[in-house]
Amino acid sequence: MIDERINLLRNKMIERNIDYYIAIDSDYHNSEHVDPHFKERSFLTGFTGSAGVIIVSKDEACLFTDGRYHIQAEEQIKGSSIKLYKVGLEGVINHLDYLKQNVKDGDTVGFDGRCFSLNDFERINEQFKGKDVKTKIDFDLVGEVWHDRPDVFKGSAFSLDLKYCGKTREEKLKDVRCKMEELNASHYVISSLDDIAWLLNIRGNDIPHNPIVVSFLLIDRDDVFFFVDGDKISDEISLELKKSGVKLKKYGDIYDFIESIKEGSILFDKSKTNCKLVNSIDKNVKKIMLRNITTDMKSIKNEVEIKNIREAEIKDCVAFVKFFSYLEDHIEKDTITELDVSDLLLKFRKEQEGFIELSYETIAGYMENAASAHYQATSEKYSVLKPEGFLLIDSGGQYYGGTIDITRTISLGKISDEMKRDFTYALKALINLSRTKFLKGTNGISFDMMARSVLWNYGLDYKHGTGHGLGFMLNVHEGPQSFSLRADPKVYIEPGMVTTNEPGIYKEGKYGIRHESDLLAVLIGKNEYGDTFMEFETLTYCPFDLKSIDKKYLNSDEINWLNEYHKKTYELLSPLLEGRDLDWLKRATVPLYV
Amino acid sequence: MIDERINLLRNKMIERNIDYYIAIDSDYHNSEHVDPHFKERSFLTGFTGSAGVIIVSKDEACLFTDGRYHIQAEEQIKGSSIKLYKVGLEGVINHLDYLKQNVKDGDTVGFDGRCFSLNDFERINEQFKGKDVKTKIDFDLVGEVWHDRPDVFKGSAFSLDLKYCGKTREEKLKDVRCKMEELNASHYVISSLDDIAWLLNIRGNDIPHNPIVVSFLLIDRDDVFFFVDGDKISDEISLELKKSGVKLKKYGDIYDFIESIKEGSILFDKSKTNCKLVNSIDKNVKKIMLRNITTDMKSIKNEVEIKNIREAEIKDCVAFVKFFSYLEDHIEKDTITELDVSDLLLKFRKEQEGFIELSYETIAGYMENAASAHYQATSEKYSVLKPEGFLLIDSGGQYYGGTIDITRTISLGKISDEMKRDFTYALKALINLSRTKFLKGTNGISFDMMARSVLWNYGLDYKHGTGHGLGFMLNVHEGPQSFSLRADPKVYIEPGMVTTNEPGIYKEGKYGIRHESDLLAVLIGKNEYGDTFMEFETLTYCPFDLKSIDKKYLNSDEINWLNEYHKKTYELLSPLLEGRDLDWLKRATVPLYV
Repeated sequence: MIDERINLLRNKMIERNIDYYIAIDSDYHNSEHVDPHFKERSFLTGFTGSAGVIIVSKDEACLFTDGRYHIQAEEQIKGSSIKLYKVGLEGVINHLDYLKQNVKDGDTVGFDGRCFSLNDFERINEQFKGKDVKTKIDFDLVGEVWHDRPDVFKGSAFSLDLKYCGKTREEKLKDVRCKMEELNASHYVISSLDDIAWLLNIRGNDIPHNPIVVSFLLIDRDDVFFFVDGDKISDEISLELKKSGVKLKKYGDIYDFIESIKEGSILFDKSKTNCKLVNSIDKNVKKIMLRNITTDMKSIKNEVEIKNIREAEIKDCVAFVKFFSYLEDHIEKDTITELDVSDLLLKFRKEQEGFIELSYETIAGYMENAASAHYQATSEKYSVLKPEGFLLIDSGGQYYGGTIDITRTISLGKISDEMKRDFTYALKALINLSRTKFLKGTNGISFDMMARSVLWNYGLDYKHGTGHGLGFMLNVHEGPQSFSLRADPKVYIEPGMVTTNEPGIYKEGKYGIRHESDLLAVLIGKNEYGDTFMEFETLTYCPFDLKSIDKKYLNSDEINWLNEYHKKTYELLSPLLEGRDLDWLKRATVPLYV
Repeated sequence: MIDERINLLRNKMIERNIDYYIAIDSDYHNSEHVDPHFKERSFLTGFTGSAGVIIVSKDEACLFTDGRYHIQAEEQIKGSSIKLYKVGLEGVINHLDYLKQNVKDGDTVGFDGRCFSLNDFERINEQFKGKDVKTKIDFDLVGEVWHDRPDVFKGSAFSLDLKYCGKTREEKLKDVRCKMEELNASHYVISSLDDIAWLLNIRGNDIPHNPIVVSFLLIDRDDVFFFVDGDKISDEISLELKKSGVKLKKYGDIYDFIESIKEGSILFDKSKTNCKLVNSIDKNVKKIMLRNITTDMKSIKNEVEIKNIREAEIKDCVAFVKFFSYLEDHIEKDTITELDVSDLLLKFRKEQEGFIELSYETIAGYMENAASAHYQATSEKYSVLKPEGFLLIDSGGQYYGGTIDITRTISLGKISDEMKRDFTYALKALINLSRTKFLKGTNGISFDMMARSVLWNYGLDYKHGTGHGLGFMLNVHEGPQSFSLRADPKVYIEPGMVTTNEPGIYKEGKYGIRHESDLLAVLIGKNEYGDTFMEFETLTYCPFDLKSIDKKYLNSDEINWLNEYHKKTYELLSPLLEGRDLDWLKRATVPLYV
């Protein structure tokens, strides 16, 4: 069946004189998560992983994917003629190198320009330097052969009250226009959905977990045009937007609208704006390409947002505690699977006022399953918990009040000394970053080192960043900041930014440990030499499993930090718990002797 | 007199139709230290600091300098019409902004293109974007009015035996040509003097402290042309170079020679190559602009160099110990000034076999003088040491075997609790970086954090990098690596790199503390997951002043590190000392109780 689809595509390629066709799973906004409608690569290959590129030529169809998906891709394309490139393995090229090596003078390369950002486009084009290669980006050949393609799900938008978001859209638009003026931009087009939702103070449910509304936004000196499917916008919101000077346009009209601008300068983010849209810009219009200015604005949470996030974090932690208490009570008597863990956590979250949905699919990994940092149990493949070993839970909620991301690892019974040691090492890493004091103007590379170096000291590393920016009632991954060895050195951690702190230790075939709390960057003030210092306020108050700690690996400062943390956890959560849950919390937060 | 000089320059400007003339203190190689002959800005302004730019127009002469020199510049230009721009103060523009704001359509800006790198040139030109501004770079107007200009000092070159440098110039040239092949470069021109000296295995004495030979080098597929004043090269070295395929050319002939290349591609470093030289490149020749490939090669010391550096470090530490022992013996009975400290250290170094010269002017700062990180005592302004307080000594030697850079701070008698605490804090920072284990592929931003974050934790910062790369019998500052918040994130610390570790605490009007040792990056090996780990080997073994340590601020790991360090210091230095000096060392290296 897969080969049939590829052959149908090849016929279309011949009709259009295309020598190579590239397909990926992407919407028109370069979103992290996309509607099934946009999963063209999955449709063509049967491979459903979150990352991968297929390139089809007359002679072959090649799938490129990274180390997380080598095994899955191999299984899913079995029986087809697709050649799998296991990118990351020595000697295996990626799709860009493949294009460089294979595309010849006179060839034409095609892809749907709406699904590729200008950055993607430029990276592809770079491979053809010095060759006469045409790129055609104006059609969706996969769409032409995908007959039972699912329709795009259309949710409905809701407006965010000022008591949640703390700043009106008029004020935000004023800030944006002020910055446009500074940059000498007459127009600003925004494609990234979290930026649009933040700026307009609206949210939606077009995609699970990310409460965005699929749309484009165009701001000029006089008007704001909101390109969105009208069905999603109720009359009430429509009126509200109108009052703020926001005019509704049809979603698909953005391309023609951009084309109709004949002078001035247009600001956009080339990593977020699709290349078909960029192609629509008139030659006489100057392009100003910068990271979305709204990305920086929304990364700095305002006082109202911060207050709300603090409360939402407590709600999520209460759900966690109820789950832990339940688990302790049932682990020996009931059969509980990894899938049940997700269900239970969702159940306890639903009890919380203001809970909307999960902020991402819960990762519940028992023992060796958790050794893969992004493990997901499925109905086909999951483990049953035993009253021993480690369970890693990475789970968060969307609340009226914030987007939460928490990871805790707990022992379900007996664990080895090595496991206790590793648990404690990872905790030391979390503590070291959490209590860092720092000069204003410090970047994410430096912060990554504060956690990672603790584990390096023991000859251990984790193959992911230490933390990522968190949206407000939006995406669980939002920049511009991150804590990573490869972070942008020119992005500094500013007061009001919320970033996760999630070091881990992963032992293949054995277990995985990760501790994750969300950190708010706050100002301390100036020292006597005029240096402005900052620190982190921990927002997440959920106990770290005391039974898994080997105290001999903690120094007195670390024990004091942990005791303080648990003391505050008890203070914050105990008023919201009772009975067995409260009793569990009490035991989970007893101080360790220094 | 200063105004006279500026008026003479103005006359020349009028003759040549120049509206703005820019002068700096720079040779034709963008060297850190230059011969007095090249100090055109100093000549014009009377201001002798190491950083500063003068811009002269018909209406005014403006001097721009940074925070280190605001006071000095003010004093030195007193009585002249020069306007001082104290760059770094709020609202004060730098010379680039000045050009942007003042240079108008139709203006012509001039400077000696030999003294400005292509990077400088581009940065200047950027200011004139959108304006019709001419730049003339083909003459040296300051030279035309500087009648008693000193001649350039011409030293003589010497050749480096293989027992010192460990790799023949033929092998090095082969490596360079291999890389040129990879980059598809038919020619490679090197302007930076440390790179040329390293590649040809020669050293010289054209400039104090930096044993380079003023020259250019041009490598093509067949030949190596060495553009150097013939007087500096003895017949013996000339013959030796000839055998290695290196042909001598006149120093000044590089420009015509470059111009005579009519095809192919020329590799050069735009931050090191002067813009006049770049202007000489024919239009048909492709420019490949990259950091000098030799800079990366020479930063990784070979086994022979490493063995030699280890020995040279010990010699320098022996000189330090002899000085400390002398100081202890004489501080109460003699008058010792900061200038005497420099002289004494030089005297003890001269006793060491293989000592050549100081690797930089010794910084000997007593108490508040040391609060300025780059303090230099002069015959006009120096302090007399008292048997109390802190003395900071930052000093190093050039040896047959290596370039050394050491800082120690010692108490000369009574010091306050605050001083002890700060001394100990800074030591903690040095220890934390020294004992870091790290993954191969870690950059200098991460390492900076390992030292700096220790002081940030106490609300303290130092306004300089944590460390810089060290040359081998060459410059005391050599890249590409550094430990700095602003380091290039794509430069990783590789096995064989030597970098300084020098955190400090500076309290204006009170005292300055800095501890500095040189660190060699070494491979540990792979862990069980295939991650390659590295660590630092400390090369500098010179005691840290035990009397200045307040043990209550050190944890047991830090005390153990210090005791190990002092134990090894005693083992390495004691065989080379006797009498009072040995006795001093014994007392200076006693272990602290944990």
